[in-house]
Amino acid sequence: MSSHSPQPIVLDPDKVERVLGRIAARIGARHVLRAAGDLAPHLVEGRGLFQGATPAVLRPGSAEEVALVVAECAAAGLPFVPQGGNTGLVGGQVPFGALLISLSRLDRIRDLDPTDLTVTAEAGVTLAKVQEAAREHGCLFPLSIAAEGSCQIGGNLSTNAGGTAVLRYGNMRELALGLEVVLPDGRLWNGLSRLRKDNTGYDLKDLFIGAEGTLGIITAAVLRLFPAPRQRATALVGLESPHAALALFRRLRAVAGDALTGFEIMPRFGLETVLKHMPGTVRALQGDHAFYVLAELTSTRHEDDLAAMVLAVLADAFEAAEVEDAVIAASEAQAAALWRLREDLSDAQKFEGGSIKHDVSVPVSKVADFIVEATRRCEAHMPGLRVCAFGHMGDGNVHFNLSQPVGMDKAAFIDTWEDFNRIVHDLVASLSGSISAEHGIGLLKKEELTLYKDKVALELMAAVKAALDPKGLANPGKVLLGR
Amino acid sequence: MSSHSPQPIVLDPDKVERVLGRIAARIGARHVLRAAGDLAPHLVEGRGLFQGATPAVLRPGSAEEVALVVAECAAAGLPFVPQGGNTGLVGGQVPFGALLISLSRLDRIRDLDPTDLTVTAEAGVTLAKVQEAAREHGCLFPLSIAAEGSCQIGGNLSTNAGGTAVLRYGNMRELALGLEVVLPDGRLWNGLSRLRKDNTGYDLKDLFIGAEGTLGIITAAVLRLFPAPRQRATALVGLESPHAALALFRRLRAVAGDALTGFEIMPRFGLETVLKHMPGTVRALQGDHAFYVLAELTSTRHEDDLAAMVLAVLADAFEAAEVEDAVIAASEAQAAALWRLREDLSDAQKFEGGSIKHDVSVPVSKVADFIVEATRRCEAHMPGLRVCAFGHMGDGNVHFNLSQPVGMDKAAFIDTWEDFNRIVHDLVASLSGSISAEHGIGLLKKEELTLYKDKVALELMAAVKAALDPKGLANPGKVLLGR
Repeated sequence: MSSHSPQPIVLDPDKVERVLGRIAARIGARHVLRAAGDLAPHLVEGRGLFQGATPAVLRPGSAEEVALVVAECAAAGLPFVPQGGNTGLVGGQVPFGALLISLSRLDRIRDLDPTDLTVTAEAGVTLAKVQEAAREHGCLFPLSIAAEGSCQIGGNLSTNAGGTAVLRYGNMRELALGLEVVLPDGRLWNGLSRLRKDNTGYDLKDLFIGAEGTLGIITAAVLRLFPAPRQRATALVGLESPHAALALFRRLRAVAGDALTGFEIMPRFGLETVLKHMPGTVRALQGDHAFYVLAELTSTRHEDDLAAMVLAVLADAFEAAEVEDAVIAASEAQAAALWRLREDLSDAQKFEGGSIKHDVSVPVSKVADFIVEATRRCEAHMPGLRVCAFGHMGDGNVHFNLSQPVGMDKAAFIDTWEDFNRIVHDLVASLSGSISAEHGIGLLKKEELTLYKDKVALELMAAVKAALDPKGLANPGKVLLGR
Repeated sequence: MSSHSPQPIVLDPDKVERVLGRIAARIGARHVLRAAGDLAPHLVEGRGLFQGATPAVLRPGSAEEVALVVAECAAAGLPFVPQGGNTGLVGGQVPFGALLISLSRLDRIRDLDPTDLTVTAEAGVTLAKVQEAAREHGCLFPLSIAAEGSCQIGGNLSTNAGGTAVLRYGNMRELALGLEVVLPDGRLWNGLSRLRKDNTGYDLKDLFIGAEGTLGIITAAVLRLFPAPRQRATALVGLESPHAALALFRRLRAVAGDALTGFEIMPRFGLETVLKHMPGTVRALQGDHAFYVLAELTSTRHEDDLAAMVLAVLADAFEAAEVEDAVIAASEAQAAALWRLREDLSDAQKFEGGSIKHDVSVPVSKVADFIVEATRRCEAHMPGLRVCAFGHMGDGNVHFNLSQPVGMDKAAFIDTWEDFNRIVHDLVASLSGSISAEHGIGLLKKEELTLYKDKVALELMAAVKAALDPKGLANPGKVLLGR
């Protein structure tokens, strides 16, 4: 898969030196990193799929300095790649010859207002820091993903991050009220609105959210907060099939409404992998179930009895033979133990050899069909394959991961990635789904995108790119083919 | 204000005849209206601020026919204006010489799925029909505005309509999952996704939502549904000030969370106007209060006691001297009677002579300050002026309407509109607010927009317009100056 790395862009070294000299004069020479040891951590990503290259890592300290840096690049025609916490899963943050602009020094929370329920955070603030600031004010910032300790708000916005609470609160897009953006020519757009309603022209902010830095660099955002929940109920349920899980989802949603904040599905193979490899994890349900659901309800109300609500729904589901067994956490510690079974799933898979991953979504009504049929087709293609289809069932978002057959050569297995892409993505397309539900396109999926995305949509994307970045300097070679 | 109508565009009559002939051959001659009597209802709007003109009203019957019509216009360089239910308040739907494309024949609900919680509706379906279809399936489509019986989904999307349930469910933008759009050159983009998560490139749909037809014509949409509420509590509260209302809002939101679906403020003058002029309205609270709040809570849960929840919050608010008096509806009929007091407000104002209207928003934390200070400044500018500041306080959205002094000449009063725009909009701008919270820009506010909108944002809007509609044929002269 390191063949995914494209040939690096070759920049004129004299021009680069001239521009870096001017940038150093503006933001300070110590914020222009050149040593190989300083560059190295910015050039590889978590999965090891790509090896990047860059002449320098630039570390501006404010939105104005980002604008200065980009203006210098634009004047000289030098391409640049913005990078946050470098936790992206599709290579969007890796430079291949372009200058790297790190947002890590933009790490201030500028404002938090508990009446407006807004927090204004700079791009380099980690997600965990925003969550923590919200908690200190009795509020909730609901975005929650595995990388939250190191990923940054700018990256979360640029990839429209999802996670386990999307069912109730939406993706990063739904959580952003306003943005501050440096455009590819160095202009600084202050769109830091904290308004709930504003119908004065085109919706500009949503162009930059999810654009993976190809239309400009997000430097700050106004994000929505929510009243902190006062009650929580967490249940682990054993079931015989994805269709039973979907039936339970419908039951819970009809009664709990907004109180249903999470609905995750896991297969037996995934749960057993966690229990086998991850120290301190505990089997919460005895017996043998083909699938497990982790459901979470929360409420801001003092007097709610969410556990009773879940119990009542489960009782109905038992009667309908949709549920085999269930446990409701009796304490925060038990709830945390249940969540660990789900959260450790990706890490645990590494112990089972090579893993081929798909991050797909289908309409919620089709998610059980998808899991069953995709599993059947993949197992038929490679006997001994171990399917781990898990994820955010309530959003129709499945991480359809494939662990290699026991004993197979890892590299040989990884070499079949394209075969499985075709099997899985063709099925996704036939169900009107998406080949990238929450990870984005980056470099990893840009060729794949041309196979499955509507042609007019691709033309529109190219027109927008040309309008906002006519020189093609912002994160070149990402998202769009030939750019 | 009829001076707001610009000089009509003059089209080459021979070219118009040629193109209309071709269009008639494609969509049927009876769907190309030419008679003055047929055109007339499409050329004036509810407030009578504009008088439009058009050579013909075209009534395609499908998205494909809309694409054919637009392609013919584009090939000949003829401009066109899309029109839905013609209920817009800023003149966006009125043609001034351009061809008019009516979406009213695209009136099918193509699909409704209670598991996906989606409805796929064509642009010409009325909002009321979508609400009704949702109800029949045990679901809720939450958008609710005064014009719901006649306004259409295409117009709701193109103006990003708001209304009384935005606090809980968001604007039309938040309610749309996917769109089908005819682009200004006649290409048909099928973006009718019903996915909750899809990170495959730029967010295109949000470009068209709120663009008022200047970037293309929306022909259908996938809209989000919600589980239908099973419980409802409606309260009318008398208070001494907007600041007391804001304090009550914070209290209610902290306890009720998502159950709080509406929080509307009205001044005494507004309520008294309704009681005086609107037959069948009933004074629900005795005594004399400077302001009134209409609060609504809903829940999908069987066992909720929302009235008890409201009572508990009101008891706390009484003790803190934030509330003067309150009544909670004991039946659906009483709740409807309370809502009539709010819903009849715009109509009742017509009986009090000329009315100068502003549709503004500010951050929620500033909404009480705004009402107080804007009232003070306007009353100081014109003694005897009667301020009616009402609306969606929970969203920071105030309809800041001014009724003329008793006995003043109506036309003379209306002539002072620009003065009040300056007073109100300058204050809005100083509070980082918006001069159009939910009605849009259209023709009415496009000059005003250039005074208050960020310059870089205006440049970005122009770049997007040029990229998607290089010939400037889609709803010319709307939203953007000089286009």
